Amino acid sequence: MRTIEWDPTRRALRMIDQRLLPGDLVMLELRTCEQVCEAIREMAVRGAPAIGASAAFGLALAALNSEGKAGPAFLETLQEKALQLRKTRPTAVNLGWALDRMSRVLDAHEALGPADLAQLLVEEAQRIADEDVAVNRRIAKNGAALLQDGDTVIHHCNTGALATVDYGTALGVIRRAHETGKHIHVLVDETRPRLQGARLTAWELQQLGIPYEIITDNAAGYFLQRGLAQAAIVGADRVAANGDIANKIGTYMLALAAADNQVPFYCAAPLSTLDLSVPSGEAIPIEERAPEEVLDLERGGRRLSPPDSGARNPAFDITPHHLLTAIITEAGVVRAPYEASLQRALQESKP
Amino acid sequence: MRTIEWDPTRRALRMIDQRLLPGDLVMLELRTCEQVCEAIREMAVRGAPAIGASAAFGLALAALNSEGKAGPAFLETLQEKALQLRKTRPTAVNLGWALDRMSRVLDAHEALGPADLAQLLVEEAQRIADEDVAVNRRIAKNGAALLQDGDTVIHHCNTGALATVDYGTALGVIRRAHETGKHIHVLVDETRPRLQGARLTAWELQQLGIPYEIITDNAAGYFLQRGLAQAAIVGADRVAANGDIANKIGTYMLALAAADNQVPFYCAAPLSTLDLSVPSGEAIPIEERAPEEVLDLERGGRRLSPPDSGARNPAFDITPHHLLTAIITEAGVVRAPYEASLQRALQESKP
Repeated sequence: MRTIEWDPTRRALRMIDQRLLPGDLVMLELRTCEQVCEAIREMAVRGAPAIGASAAFGLALAALNSEGKAGPAFLETLQEKALQLRKTRPTAVNLGWALDRMSRVLDAHEALGPADLAQLLVEEAQRIADEDVAVNRRIAKNGAALLQDGDTVIHHCNTGALATVDYGTALGVIRRAHETGKHIHVLVDETRPRLQGARLTAWELQQLGIPYEIITDNAAGYFLQRGLAQAAIVGADRVAANGDIANKIGTYMLALAAADNQVPFYCAAPLSTLDLSVPSGEAIPIEERAPEEVLDLERGGRRLSPPDSGARNPAFDITPHHLLTAIITEAGVVRAPYEASLQRALQESKP
Repeated sequence: MRTIEWDPTRRALRMIDQRLLPGDLVMLELRTCEQVCEAIREMAVRGAPAIGASAAFGLALAALNSEGKAGPAFLETLQEKALQLRKTRPTAVNLGWALDRMSRVLDAHEALGPADLAQLLVEEAQRIADEDVAVNRRIAKNGAALLQDGDTVIHHCNTGALATVDYGTALGVIRRAHETGKHIHVLVDETRPRLQGARLTAWELQQLGIPYEIITDNAAGYFLQRGLAQAAIVGADRVAANGDIANKIGTYMLALAAADNQVPFYCAAPLSTLDLSVPSGEAIPIEERAPEEVLDLERGGRRLSPPDSGARNPAFDITPHHLLTAIITEAGVVRAPYEASLQRALQESKP
């Protein structure tokens, strides 16, 4: 089962509702572009690669649902829907990358009628999804070589099958190391406020039989300081041309703690996450989400923060490239100076 | 109302049950040393200065409840109870410091009978409590001078009235700056796993009318990086001779982020928190608490981590002295090199 899957018979996008895990494993069936927008915004689906593929299918759904329109009206509708999809979340660039690919299909075949174009868009979205899985397996293979038998690895957020179409990026690296017989123990950052670590990564590791312990995000420094972790690994929502990465809030502080203790800090990300139009991390837009996500915790049925408290809730932060040991891509393990090495990886990855 | 208060009529220690805040403000009435041990272990009372004073009253209660014993049996009982109190929590040194003071009273008056000794112990515990409030007010005055009108300050854990007998240490500094007319905005680290920030610090700030917003601990780096905070301030559970501090888990990562952005990072602590017998932070014992504290979060009545997950839960970490801008004590603001300046502060504070 993939995290997101196209159902050709029902002309629908099926996806795991990640808000309900690990309690319930529920599949959503989305039949309109609006439903896909909502699923991305509300984080029923999250993880840069997964929302990229979802957006592609969202546009395909918009096309299928507009087949009856005349050519120009059809194209106008798709432009509008693409813009809606693009606006759902601002930080992950995979969303824009996937929609750009879809838009190139439209441009290349503008002479075709709506029904044929819709079919081509479904096929392109399916290619994006299939390629994601293949790319992740290459990332995993490249990265697994960096982990040693017996390593304890700190992992932030969720970067597993759930964050992608399948297999995962940073968690894929850990999975591949495990599958090739290395004993890896994972310290799972719980990843406040939405607890993607405690909810999703722990759940995935449990399924895979990889040993893990959940820690609070603020405890990572303790384990690094005491020599109890040999590597830290994260994904990325956007990689700037200079190698700075935008990733889930808390990544920057984890990277600082790894650097302070000379522990390797890896970012695993597909090249679709690279945004060469952005020179450095400063220019990456950072989403700030609802205060409620910080304030809605309960214990024993009681809310834990005082009524009428405010909160700030930036969803991502920027880790400057000098704190990274390497970026693990499908085209190989990329190291500083990143301007040159990322460009080279991108060239090499082109067919 | 103080956080802990002696009731001479009922011969009982009254304290706020901090586990129930901010939902309920409930006072516990403790009449035995065992009840005090339990309150400290289970964190009904927490905060290094508050548990120091509580332990002193705990020993006084043991004495009152043993008044009927013969001299040698009385002293033996007190030694045993002091050891029990000392073992409740390992990291904060104020606990041992307060019990040492109590033990010196016993030594100085060993010729007296149990009833008189018990009375002297109650008086010494009361002195420890009263001095704590006076010391905190001096710390607050010394520290408030370091904050500027308009500053946004990041605060970790709870160091307010609730962490002490009254007024607080690091939060006392913020409070004093506020009371002297400076506009201070506080970014309250929620402080996982027990959420002393979101529960207790937010509640205290609300009472005091000081504006604040709650943030996840892992978001502090974001605000520091963007120039949105002008200082960070924490308390301490133990300060080593070289200035390394043991404090609530997450302090080290916050200090790293402050240092990386050249933002001042202050520790506010009474000199009773200084342990000259410990040369550096490495030698400070770090308590690891139950995994359940990490795993028991709920949202909408549902538990958030998968069943059968394990967790690690170190309650403190060590911040090396080179990450501190200064330590704010009742004897003044102490700066590097700390070996000498802390010794000097200790000398100056002696009557």
